[in-house]
Amino acid sequence: MWRLYQYTLCPFSRKVRFACAVKGVTVELVDEFPWDRRDGFAALNPAGQTPVLQNSSVTLVDSAAICDYLEETIERTPLLGAGPEERAESRRLIAWFDQKFYGEVTAPLLSERMYKRLFTREAPDAAAIRSAARNAEAHLDYLDFLLDRRRWLSGPAFGLADIAAVAQVSVADYLGAIEWDGHDPARTWYSAIKSRPTFRPLLQERMEGLPPPSHYDKLDF
Amino acid sequence: MWRLYQYTLCPFSRKVRFACAVKGVTVELVDEFPWDRRDGFAALNPAGQTPVLQNSSVTLVDSAAICDYLEETIERTPLLGAGPEERAESRRLIAWFDQKFYGEVTAPLLSERMYKRLFTREAPDAAAIRSAARNAEAHLDYLDFLLDRRRWLSGPAFGLADIAAVAQVSVADYLGAIEWDGHDPARTWYSAIKSRPTFRPLLQERMEGLPPPSHYDKLDF
Ligand SMILES: N[C@@H](CCC(=O)N[C@@H](CS)C(=O)NCC(=O)O)C(=O)O
Ligand SMILES: N[C@@H](CCC(=O)N[C@@H](CS)C(=O)NCC(=O)O)C(=O)O
Repeated sequence: MWRLYQYTLCPFSRKVRFACAVKGVTVELVDEFPWDRRDGFAALNPAGQTPVLQNSSVTLVDSAAICDYLEETIERTPLLGAGPEERAESRRLIAWFDQKFYGEVTAPLLSERMYKRLFTREAPDAAAIRSAARNAEAHLDYLDFLLDRRRWLSGPAFGLADIAAVAQVSVADYLGAIEWDGHDPARTWYSAIKSRPTFRPLLQERMEGLPPPSHYDKLDF
Repeated sequence: MWRLYQYTLCPFSRKVRFACAVKGVTVELVDEFPWDRRDGFAALNPAGQTPVLQNSSVTLVDSAAICDYLEETIERTPLLGAGPEERAESRRLIAWFDQKFYGEVTAPLLSERMYKRLFTREAPDAAAIRSAARNAEAHLDYLDFLLDRRRWLSGPAFGLADIAAVAQVSVADYLGAIEWDGHDPARTWYSAIKSRPTFRPLLQERMEGLPPPSHYDKLDF
C-alpha cells in the first residue's frame, strides 16, 4: 500500500494524487505540513518538501521523479506521449508549470494567503498578491494559446502536462487569484478536468480556516 | 547537426553539454544570454531561458527534458540507472541540484558576482554572497554524506545525478564560493570528473571580464 505525505493545497501533491488516480493507483494520504519541519519527515526527504510517496520497500521524493516512476512501472494509461519528441514537449510544459507557474503565481499566493493567514497571522502583502494575479493572467493567456492549437496542453492526448497545469491552476483558483472571464479555451479545458471522477475528490477538500471562493468546485464557473 | 543555445556560466547548459559529450553527441554552441531578451530567442523558448537544443526538425527546451530525450534516443551509456527505483533516486538528486542547489547557491552567485559585475555594474550584496557560500558548505556536506555511502552520487554508476551536480558545483567554484578543505569525498569526486576528457573543455572556457580563482581548472586543488 502506498502512503503519500502531502497537504491539501500543495500543488505538487495534487499533481501526484491526480496522476495516481488516473493510473488507478490507490494511495493512503498522510497529512504533512512541510513548514512544521518534523524530524521524522526530514529523514524521509532531506529536502523537507511534500510530496513523498512511500511503500514498504521504496521511498520516492520529488513529484517529477514520482510521476516518471508511475509512468515507468504502470503501463496503463500512458501520460507522457508516444515518441521522444512528444515526451520532450510534455516535459517542457511540466517544467513550465512546476517551476514558472509555481514560482510566479502559486508560491507567492501560498505564502501570502495561506501561510501568513494560518500560521504567522501576519497581514498579507497586497502588492505580492496583485503581482501573482497579474502573472496568473499571463499564464492563462498561454493556456489559451496552447489550447487554440491543441486538444490538450501537450498534444492530442490528455497527459502529465495537463495534470501538472491543473495542479497549479486549481490551487491558484482556491486562493482566489484566477479571473476566468476572457479565457474561454482555458475555462473549457478546466471544466472538462473538473468533471473527471479522478479529479473531483481534490475539489471537495478544504483547508481549515481558509475557505475557497464559491465558484471553486462548480463545474459551471 | 544539433545547436545548443547557451552561455558559459549557465549551469543547466553545462549539464546538457556534459551529457551530450558523454553520450557522444556533437553540438554546435550558440552564445545566448537570456537577460538580453532577444526576440528571436523568445520564439524558440517562451520561458526565455537557456539551454535550448535544436536541430532542423525539433526544438528541445528545459535541461531535464533535453537529458531525458538524450537518454531515450541514444542507448549508448545509459545515465539514469537500471531499474525504476534507481532511476527515481537519480531523478530525486537531479531535482535537488537543479532546484535546491541552484536556488540556494548558484542563482544568487550568478546574480551578485556575474550579472551585477558585467551588466548593471552595481556593487554585489555581500550578505547574499555569504549566505550562498554558507549554503554551498551545507551542500558539500550532503555530497560527502552520499559519497561516503556510494561510488557515485546516485549509486554504483556515474550518471545524470553526477552531471547535474557538477554543473552547479563547477559554476559555484568558478564564482569563488566553494571551500574544498574539509570535504575530501566531494573533492575526490570532483577531481575524478575534472580529469574526464568529456568535461575538460568546459573548464577551459572563460567569461570575459570575470576570471575564476586560480585553482578552478586544476586537477589538484
Ligand atoms: N520539486 C519538488 C517541489 C516540492 C515543493 O516545493 N513542495 C513545497 C510545498 S507545495 C514545500 O514542501 N515547501 C517547503 C520547503 O521548500 O521548505 C516537487 O516537485 O515535488
Ligand atoms: N528549468 C530550466 C532552468 C533554466 C534556467 O533557469 N536558465 C537560466 C540561466 S542559468 C535563465 O535562462 N535565466 C533567465 C530567466 O529565467 O529569465 C532548465 O533546467 O533548463
